[in-house]
Amino acid sequence: MQYLAIRTAIHIAAIFAIYLSLAMFIPAGVDLYFGNEDWQVFAFSAVLTGGLALAVAAATQGRPPVLSARFGFFVVNLLWLTTCTVGAIPFLTSSLEISLTDAVFESVSGITTTGGTVLTGLDSLPPGILIWRSLLQWIGGLGVIALGLFVLPFLNVGGVSYFKIESSDISDRPFERFSTYTTSLIAIYVALTVICAICYAAAGMTGFNAVNHALTTISTAGFSTHDSSMAFYDDNLPVLWIATVFMFIGALPFAIVILLFTRGRIESLRDPQLRVFAGYVLIFILAVTIYVRLSSDIGFIDALTHSAFNFMSIITTTGYASSDYTAWGPFAFACAFVAMFLGGCSGSTTGGIKAYRFLILFELVLNGLRRLVYPNTVQSVRYGDRPVDDAMQRAVVLFIASFFILWLITTILLSATGLDFISAMSGALTALTNVGPGLGDVIGPVGNFATIPDTAKWIMAIAMLMGRLEILAVLVIFTPIFWNR
Amino acid sequence: MQYLAIRTAIHIAAIFAIYLSLAMFIPAGVDLYFGNEDWQVFAFSAVLTGGLALAVAAATQGRPPVLSARFGFFVVNLLWLTTCTVGAIPFLTSSLEISLTDAVFESVSGITTTGGTVLTGLDSLPPGILIWRSLLQWIGGLGVIALGLFVLPFLNVGGVSYFKIESSDISDRPFERFSTYTTSLIAIYVALTVICAICYAAAGMTGFNAVNHALTTISTAGFSTHDSSMAFYDDNLPVLWIATVFMFIGALPFAIVILLFTRGRIESLRDPQLRVFAGYVLIFILAVTIYVRLSSDIGFIDALTHSAFNFMSIITTTGYASSDYTAWGPFAFACAFVAMFLGGCSGSTTGGIKAYRFLILFELVLNGLRRLVYPNTVQSVRYGDRPVDDAMQRAVVLFIASFFILWLITTILLSATGLDFISAMSGALTALTNVGPGLGDVIGPVGNFATIPDTAKWIMAIAMLMGRLEILAVLVIFTPIFWNR
Repeated sequence: MQYLAIRTAIHIAAIFAIYLSLAMFIPAGVDLYFGNEDWQVFAFSAVLTGGLALAVAAATQGRPPVLSARFGFFVVNLLWLTTCTVGAIPFLTSSLEISLTDAVFESVSGITTTGGTVLTGLDSLPPGILIWRSLLQWIGGLGVIALGLFVLPFLNVGGVSYFKIESSDISDRPFERFSTYTTSLIAIYVALTVICAICYAAAGMTGFNAVNHALTTISTAGFSTHDSSMAFYDDNLPVLWIATVFMFIGALPFAIVILLFTRGRIESLRDPQLRVFAGYVLIFILAVTIYVRLSSDIGFIDALTHSAFNFMSIITTTGYASSDYTAWGPFAFACAFVAMFLGGCSGSTTGGIKAYRFLILFELVLNGLRRLVYPNTVQSVRYGDRPVDDAMQRAVVLFIASFFILWLITTILLSATGLDFISAMSGALTALTNVGPGLGDVIGPVGNFATIPDTAKWIMAIAMLMGRLEILAVLVIFTPIFWNR
Repeated sequence: MQYLAIRTAIHIAAIFAIYLSLAMFIPAGVDLYFGNEDWQVFAFSAVLTGGLALAVAAATQGRPPVLSARFGFFVVNLLWLTTCTVGAIPFLTSSLEISLTDAVFESVSGITTTGGTVLTGLDSLPPGILIWRSLLQWIGGLGVIALGLFVLPFLNVGGVSYFKIESSDISDRPFERFSTYTTSLIAIYVALTVICAICYAAAGMTGFNAVNHALTTISTAGFSTHDSSMAFYDDNLPVLWIATVFMFIGALPFAIVILLFTRGRIESLRDPQLRVFAGYVLIFILAVTIYVRLSSDIGFIDALTHSAFNFMSIITTTGYASSDYTAWGPFAFACAFVAMFLGGCSGSTTGGIKAYRFLILFELVLNGLRRLVYPNTVQSVRYGDRPVDDAMQRAVVLFIASFFILWLITTILLSATGLDFISAMSGALTALTNVGPGLGDVIGPVGNFATIPDTAKWIMAIAMLMGRLEILAVLVIFTPIFWNR
């Protein structure tokens, strides 16, 4: 890395921090509106962060470097670290009186759209803090979509290069198109959030709760304004179904959502990953519904609603809970465990392994079996009607294999901090896949991350960031050649 | 598949069954020697099986088919199924009075060298049954080595093709050399077993127990003649260390062991997978020793011995236990869980992912990271000083990814039979990796598989076979193209 590249990256991060400091005026305004004194904290944080960021931005101004993959990775990592740091400032300066570790954990869990929380007594917290948590997730969700659409594909990470914006979509006048595209992205993201909030309010949520939950639903993120998460609404079936639908939308490939909204391209729904995603969502929901219906006296409608809501929440890596689904019996417990790996589509706000990787893995296995029978045939692996090239095949299986190994290593590290096995194993998983709750009594759907050791919180925060940046984009920073001049 | 190929495959399986029926005279002899009436059962089983096999062999005699990959897979699957079936006959006809499910489970668990048992009261069982269980594992171990050396590499399964016997070892006069090689293999396997038995006897085991444990140690298989497994010898440290050393030897690449014994080629020990295997064995043993020492009042020597014995047993997928290591605390529990994935070297009797696959995965990740920084560099992935070709790279990561997915699916299936989560999750894992005991109260190191539902036993039996045949060699049988004419 050159001095020039590092300086420019810091400059970009500082500019971004200025925007974040402006975002802090939103919770300040909310607190002011509700007559809460914490508005001063946010105004103070905003001025402090904004001033500092302005100073850094000014000091690092100058000629940009030649664009390179290294520069791209450095900027991406720095942006996320900056956001995590800035995001933690209001938690530290507010009336919450929480430790640095907890502030950072909450901020990272927010921005990575994980949704595990260390805060308790959410229902009586100042509204500013609550909206700040929701905003962090909403911004994080937008960041992930942008990353998946504009950045990672061009850096060739994790086999997402396949889902580059098609050249036909931006080619004529690249920059103009790019900016239109970005505008569409933000407009649609905002529109979906507004529609979701209106639906929630219509179903009976207060306006404030509707906005908060809309922000964290569309970003498949999972922070709630209630300690009991969505179990607060467990007899309000419309709320649960609205959430289920919007979590599903949040898990769709955003590139396709944009095409659908801006050009009405219905045929873009033919993307094969949609079938795989919808397929496993349906299978899990139906299997668990039948299991719950047979093994308890819960009625069919309730069983279906809670099964649909909670398993949509796990599979889309949102992390809401309307009930302790791990208490439904061993089959539901095992399904929840496996569902945590799945994730949604490419270019969505979801984490996990994701549908397109499963599809390509399946095609690779089939192809491998064919080759075992006929060693000399060469048949290409296909994604829908397009062939999948070697680099993409390698990237997909490499991601899956690395993901599992990293999960096992994180499990051991967490258990070394004294966490029980289920908490360590599911904590490592929920962090890497950005789901939110884990399994078991401590960090399960009715648990909380407040009581786990500080070291475990830091390990999980790092795991969340690694999961969010598709693992390799973080690991690459730690290779010696990355820092060669 | 052609009629000719199927007939010849059945012929080969029948010939093999004749040998197995002859092996039944060993437990018959043992029971006769100890004055147990069950000798008649074994003699009867031997005559019945031998007669039937002879008839089938005679009926299927004829011109062999053209050799093909399909024929190879069919023979391999048929041989293992035949052995599992024949192996179960003495359990069914003996004085044990166990169900068909239990007999098959015990036989499969034996032959696949898994080592989970449904039998209780082992200490007072007739000696014939005990030696039959040990023999099944010993034969299974030999079968796995043969599979890894002679069969799978030529069928290109799971990235083992890299470890074909080097042409220099058998090329001059292929058939003559091949037969010498096979003779060396069997001679060394027998010699190691005898040495192991002598060591056990010298350390204080009875002759009968020494032979039984030697048979199941060198095959890294894990059946014991005691309900408490090796905890029966928990204060006999020499026995535990002898077992530790011979499990380690059993996990080495047998091709190298042969070169070492027959030609004194010390330099063959430079195989990089040996360093990886020895490396993770050492790390786990030392980490757990330190943890046990710090978190309990067990002395250093005892902590080291039990940690070395039990973690060598898990990592080499043997499955003995000298103590309930899952009760040592959450860190030991998590280590035991992760250790179950590891396995030994290629061409050994161990299951699991195995050291060479981890090494190649690691090289692939490093290579992938290098390519992220310098997208245009082409640098080959190396195993030691040899390059790893594309097919091998693909096979290795494909195996690892499929392995994890299959594990998750098996976990859900087992939980659907009513098993609790820890039992289902670890049961699926221990079956696929052929370790033996799982985790938790039911099937953990001090548990037993007798109480789990029959459906779960069948699912696990299938998983054991799939794990033993490196997954794809079984899956291939279930593809439609396999059965095309």
